[in-house]
Amino acid sequence: MGMTRHIECERCGALLTAYRNPVPTVDIIIEIQGEIVVVERKNPPKGMALPGGFVDYGESVADAAAREAREETGLEIEIKYLLGVYSDPSRDRRLHTITSVFVASSSGEPVAGDDAKEVILVRPEEAGPLCFDHNRILQDYLEAKKDIDQQDSSYRYNRCCYFS
Amino acid sequence: MGMTRHIECERCGALLTAYRNPVPTVDIIIEIQGEIVVVERKNPPKGMALPGGFVDYGESVADAAAREAREETGLEIEIKYLLGVYSDPSRDRRLHTITSVFVASSSGEPVAGDDAKEVILVRPEEAGPLCFDHNRILQDYLEAKKDIDQQDSSYRYNRCCYFS
Repeated sequence: MGMTRHIECERCGALLTAYRNPVPTVDIIIEIQGEIVVVERKNPPKGMALPGGFVDYGESVADAAAREAREETGLEIEIKYLLGVYSDPSRDRRLHTITSVFVASSSGEPVAGDDAKEVILVRPEEAGPLCFDHNRILQDYLEAKKDIDQQDSSYRYNRCCYFS
Repeated sequence: MGMTRHIECERCGALLTAYRNPVPTVDIIIEIQGEIVVVERKNPPKGMALPGGFVDYGESVADAAAREAREETGLEIEIKYLLGVYSDPSRDRRLHTITSVFVASSSGEPVAGDDAKEVILVRPEEAGPLCFDHNRILQDYLEAKKDIDQQDSSYRYNRCCYFS
């Protein structure tokens, strides 16, 4: 069950051993009329990023995506597809996260909330540079989108799922 | 960062609070000449299942899939695609896991190792019933496979990624 880590007892200072696992997260590419939502982060690393966050215990990744979208942008989303899974241990300097990335549609005006300082709508081709591995995710999204836009209507999502 | 849980200090008995996150896992559908590998589990829940296990801290999901395949079946795999992400909190009764499921190809004879009591090769249509949500995963795999087999060679993986 993965590497172990040590937790210090707050009362007696003993070092306890606990299993350490990568932490599941979600990120969401929210499409609104040809643009996508990016947020300016309130917390480090500072900069622009896709909306997203940690998956709660007892919560599915799809539910986590809907909750994070709501908390950070005020938007209700409809998930279109899973773009991929990104798990490179260096994708987030703070800790090892494994993110499930969804593409979703929404409507209305995004409003910054929670960890977002500001939210903006931008054409996906012009949405960089972004924090973490979100530039890579954005490139994969643009490729998947091209694939989907080109295909006939009988195949809605004609592509391979990405992972790293 | 999700629900909290309590860890008991082994020295003084104090209850410490720690964040609790779902635990990332991988499962692998290993194709060998038209059949797939299923393992008989050594540990509860007993029964047949796809090979798989926990992702180590600092390890990508693809690396975890290769390692688990090697440990449980002795096979070296080549990943073909990511089938999907399954995160229903009830998918494993023991704890909340989020699994990335890969389809991979291999060759040679599987040999039971690690947590596997026995490994067998079986036609995918006849591979049930399996533990956890692996019957659902198997159904999604058969659907994806049909889709892939039917398409022309210019589109190698013509399908949507699954999630729950």
